[in-house]
Amino acid sequence: MKVIKTKPEMQAVSEKIKKDGKSIGLVPTMGYLHDGHVSLIKRSKKDCDYTVLTVFVNPTQFGPDEDFNKYPRDFNRDSKIAENEGVDYIFNPDTGEMYSENHSTYVNVEKLDKIMCGKFRPLHFKGVCTIVLKLFNIINPDAVFFGEKDAQQLAIIKRMVRDLDFDIEIVPCPIVREPDGLAMSSRNMYLSAQERQAALVISKSLELAKQMFFCGERNAEVIRKLITDKITSEPLAHINYISVVDSSTLKPVNEIVAPVLIAVAIYIGKTRLIDNILFNEVSK
Amino acid sequence: MKVIKTKPEMQAVSEKIKKDGKSIGLVPTMGYLHDGHVSLIKRSKKDCDYTVLTVFVNPTQFGPDEDFNKYPRDFNRDSKIAENEGVDYIFNPDTGEMYSENHSTYVNVEKLDKIMCGKFRPLHFKGVCTIVLKLFNIINPDAVFFGEKDAQQLAIIKRMVRDLDFDIEIVPCPIVREPDGLAMSSRNMYLSAQERQAALVISKSLELAKQMFFCGERNAEVIRKLITDKITSEPLAHINYISVVDSSTLKPVNEIVAPVLIAVAIYIGKTRLIDNILFNEVSK
Repeated sequence: MKVIKTKPEMQAVSEKIKKDGKSIGLVPTMGYLHDGHVSLIKRSKKDCDYTVLTVFVNPTQFGPDEDFNKYPRDFNRDSKIAENEGVDYIFNPDTGEMYSENHSTYVNVEKLDKIMCGKFRPLHFKGVCTIVLKLFNIINPDAVFFGEKDAQQLAIIKRMVRDLDFDIEIVPCPIVREPDGLAMSSRNMYLSAQERQAALVISKSLELAKQMFFCGERNAEVIRKLITDKITSEPLAHINYISVVDSSTLKPVNEIVAPVLIAVAIYIGKTRLIDNILFNEVSK
Repeated sequence: MKVIKTKPEMQAVSEKIKKDGKSIGLVPTMGYLHDGHVSLIKRSKKDCDYTVLTVFVNPTQFGPDEDFNKYPRDFNRDSKIAENEGVDYIFNPDTGEMYSENHSTYVNVEKLDKIMCGKFRPLHFKGVCTIVLKLFNIINPDAVFFGEKDAQQLAIIKRMVRDLDFDIEIVPCPIVREPDGLAMSSRNMYLSAQERQAALVISKSLELAKQMFFCGERNAEVIRKLITDKITSEPLAHINYISVVDSSTLKPVNEIVAPVLIAVAIYIGKTRLIDNILFNEVSK
């Protein structure tokens, strides 16, 4: 495994791979790898000849009051996990390498960026789209692997790829959960022991929704209310949003006809966590 | 020469050329070709193995009160000129092929898009960047040829290519003028005979500025005043803006130290024309 720090070096590596007729899988992360990230790497290894992992903590997707500075970083640990998993290249530029001093070009998926997480993180998806597009151009991947935990990000990146005519496959990978149900996230490390316990209410509330759906409930408001009541029963949990939306347009739905996404953002203490459940198939 | 109407067909052609190890030159225009466009084609033919011309009139770069509907179009004429010049492919999709119905992704070079022409055409450069990026992804060019007449567009596209890490050379080509000095533009066809005569004041005012510069004048305000007086002497001409700016940052300068761009937008009757002069070398 090779660590690459500069754009020209990364571009040269990608060019050589493509010239040899081989495929590149890109796993874009912000590092502090967990089993969710590992599942993306495994899928890329399965689908592509070469796997490039990025662990760049992208400043443009954090708001001024958000956790850019305290976001967990541990390159040595990430590097060992990546090597273990057979990653071929880690692209790990510093911020000055990635963004020119007077960087001023941004990519944005309008409307989709203003709802759900975008309502509370107004410039977040603009930062995400911009860095992802830059990585596309530097790494020239055939396929890019994203976790379904970031459901809105996935919908936005898919839209961007379609709208801007990128010839790249976006591969959604299932949410990976801790044994007790908590969706894996680098931000889980912010939780105290008590908060970690309280955070279980998130996946439990989605599990309840799933049970109701399989019992035949199709009214979005009824299911939304059920989740709200469950979350509210936990004193350490505070609802940021609970959305029941079409999974590709992200428009709210009244009746649950697949594919429907139920996505939530919940504060556990000061830590904001997201989770979701996708009803992909029509159930009878 | 082959005319291509769909994105998949264009992508397949580009892919084949690249696989054969050949280079692609892209000449993006909105058609109604004049000798300015022809100079771009000639340069592309000189620099690249294959030349792709686009003549797509891009709706997203026109404001609601602008001339999208009456913008001149004549595909048969363009097609003959292109064939004569040895263009290999004309990419001529219709609007529905180019933009999905719920297209929502846009690319924007912030700040540079709000000054000069951007002040009067607030969404123009966002539309330009978006279509140009789409053409980059569909055609995969090695080099793209732009006229220096659209000086702000050129600065913005160069910035976009740098900021988003496109591995594409942007080649600026000199302004082509009518024998009497008027910069060639598809919009010149809007001018009446009388307006056509009046429009000469634009290039003449820039010529005067050039003379003063070569005589040693370095004060931007003095040169700006000279151009203003000259334009104002023509009753059919109305100043939209006269800017003396750094040619890459587009920031106004007080003293003219090369590279400096003097860019103007002037209404002749109802027709808005742009022109500019670039002081690229340090003169003594």
